[in-house]
Amino acid sequence: MSWEDNVRKVVPYVPGEQPKDRSIIKLNTNECPYPPAPGVRKLIQEMKYEDFRLYPDTDATSLVSALSKYYKVPEDQIFIGVGSDDVLAMAYLTFFNSDKPVLFPDITYSFYDVWADMFGVNYETIPLDSEFRIRLEDYYGSKHPNGGVIIANPNAPVGIYEPVEALEKVVAENKESVVIIDEAYIDFGGESALPLIDKYDNVLIVQTFSKSRAMAGMRIGFAFGSKKLIQYLKDVKFSFNSYTMNMPSQELGVAAVEDDAYFKETCDKIIATRERVKKELSKLGFSFPDSMTNFIFAKHDTVSGNEIFEALKKEHIYVRHWNAERISDYLRISIGTDEEMDRLLSVLKNYLEKR
Amino acid sequence: MSWEDNVRKVVPYVPGEQPKDRSIIKLNTNECPYPPAPGVRKLIQEMKYEDFRLYPDTDATSLVSALSKYYKVPEDQIFIGVGSDDVLAMAYLTFFNSDKPVLFPDITYSFYDVWADMFGVNYETIPLDSEFRIRLEDYYGSKHPNGGVIIANPNAPVGIYEPVEALEKVVAENKESVVIIDEAYIDFGGESALPLIDKYDNVLIVQTFSKSRAMAGMRIGFAFGSKKLIQYLKDVKFSFNSYTMNMPSQELGVAAVEDDAYFKETCDKIIATRERVKKELSKLGFSFPDSMTNFIFAKHDTVSGNEIFEALKKEHIYVRHWNAERISDYLRISIGTDEEMDRLLSVLKNYLEKR
Repeated sequence: MSWEDNVRKVVPYVPGEQPKDRSIIKLNTNECPYPPAPGVRKLIQEMKYEDFRLYPDTDATSLVSALSKYYKVPEDQIFIGVGSDDVLAMAYLTFFNSDKPVLFPDITYSFYDVWADMFGVNYETIPLDSEFRIRLEDYYGSKHPNGGVIIANPNAPVGIYEPVEALEKVVAENKESVVIIDEAYIDFGGESALPLIDKYDNVLIVQTFSKSRAMAGMRIGFAFGSKKLIQYLKDVKFSFNSYTMNMPSQELGVAAVEDDAYFKETCDKIIATRERVKKELSKLGFSFPDSMTNFIFAKHDTVSGNEIFEALKKEHIYVRHWNAERISDYLRISIGTDEEMDRLLSVLKNYLEKR
Repeated sequence: MSWEDNVRKVVPYVPGEQPKDRSIIKLNTNECPYPPAPGVRKLIQEMKYEDFRLYPDTDATSLVSALSKYYKVPEDQIFIGVGSDDVLAMAYLTFFNSDKPVLFPDITYSFYDVWADMFGVNYETIPLDSEFRIRLEDYYGSKHPNGGVIIANPNAPVGIYEPVEALEKVVAENKESVVIIDEAYIDFGGESALPLIDKYDNVLIVQTFSKSRAMAGMRIGFAFGSKKLIQYLKDVKFSFNSYTMNMPSQELGVAAVEDDAYFKETCDKIIATRERVKKELSKLGFSFPDSMTNFIFAKHDTVSGNEIFEALKKEHIYVRHWNAERISDYLRISIGTDEEMDRLLSVLKNYLEKR
């Protein structure tokens, strides 16, 4: 008998590479290609460093208040976390404690099964259909008794968006479990399921500052739900760590939320670039599900995913590729600036012609 | 049957109050009364806000490297978390998975049982002796088979420090479980148990930037252990959240570690103030265990803890008080600046005289 016998042994999630070389065109982790709102820069200069000696506000009151005003949701229906990963991990701990399986798609954010494995949550994956769409009816409690449902909308890494009415049925058909809707990419053209929190007490809507609000480096995630549901989540969070969000993130997050014009301009630019790149990729022989995110999940008609991945890497362009069933021929390409995407397209063109 | 039946229901830890009114003398959460190192201020001004759009370094490499140099510990024996609470919560998840009880004192950091309850860890508390000292022999595996041990040294809220040789025996006598030594207050006069990691693979030494390094607001904790033990901890952390530490905390933490002169000066000032306040409190009729921390756990000979707590609060001085068995007559008083402590002493003197 050794102490190692009682260790929780897990296979961790592997995030996309974070190369230190800034000359690399980084289209592998769906970051925003534009900087945070100008107000963030201003606020850094004004930050009172003397205050860092104090513990931060446990409730992130100023950030909650800013989100409350922006999304028109009462403050006690908002939860804050260290990125949406923290929000989701806390939600697993809080809500997924049934013997029945938690349900999610076979192809989706690859952290979903990592959390289930770590917390010992029973789960079952439901295959996407042949066009990579989520078979939403298969998540109804009547058809598939479950201990919870988690769905990314738009779904990653495929990029497909499902309309709110279709998701509403999943929530309505699961009164006995909590349905989490992970909206990390909702700001790139989809419509949020946020209004559902007024009708159902069992739905949690999760969003993040890491994509559309250009603040992945600050680690800010948030969620909306019924007052009761949010309180349960807070109780678990406060049993884990009272002070998760540092002072600068709380303050700078407010500056990001308050500049709505900049936020919308950023999203619009990314959407415009994405639509242009879709056309160009088609011309080069790529096909892809219609993306409503800041990435495109693309497959070439004749060349393998791995080969293109390596060819791009040689040219200092990083995209994401998984050697996994059903998707090994696909690349997930984040939408960068127009200049970055032009470089990507020209490298692809050259490579495919010379091959 | 409702979704609420599967909710993890917990009684969360209650942290000390964080009043917004900055005129309050805040001696209730053991923060450092002095600002972070001057290098921190400088670095904020130089911070590249454009980079906040990117995910931070998952491994907090620069911070790990700075700690590695400072403490002369290889980088792969260092773990980083969002405050030591995050480090400890991850350690519970990783190491405390036995059916046998985890052991800790009845009077200690009140998060220890909160984590155990939340993660469903079996535990047993062992009473401090009549002088509030930890009965270390009671933690030996041979005497008390266990699934882990966690000891704060110096212990909070009593402030007593146990010598490393005594702790070493607890580690040596528990080959079948992990022993966590929580050294949040070690820099105020104690000697760290850090050298034990070279002799034992089952010990985790946890420290924080929140007290002696004056950066509670940035949320930085760290831990040392054998390479194997740290790797297990990292695997669980990466199964929870890949990107827990934001960019500014990583960068500013380095600046704090690099200014050793300022760090030592700060600790020395706090120790000098503490020793002076001990003498003054004695004169006023207080008694207390001999503290090696940045707080004093004091009891008045004739007046109840609660009464003094309320009297101080009326005068805008916040200290910590628990309505709990054995300690309800004690106040935990953080060491502030000399000016703050003089004000405390004069308010106490007045109150006790007029009473």
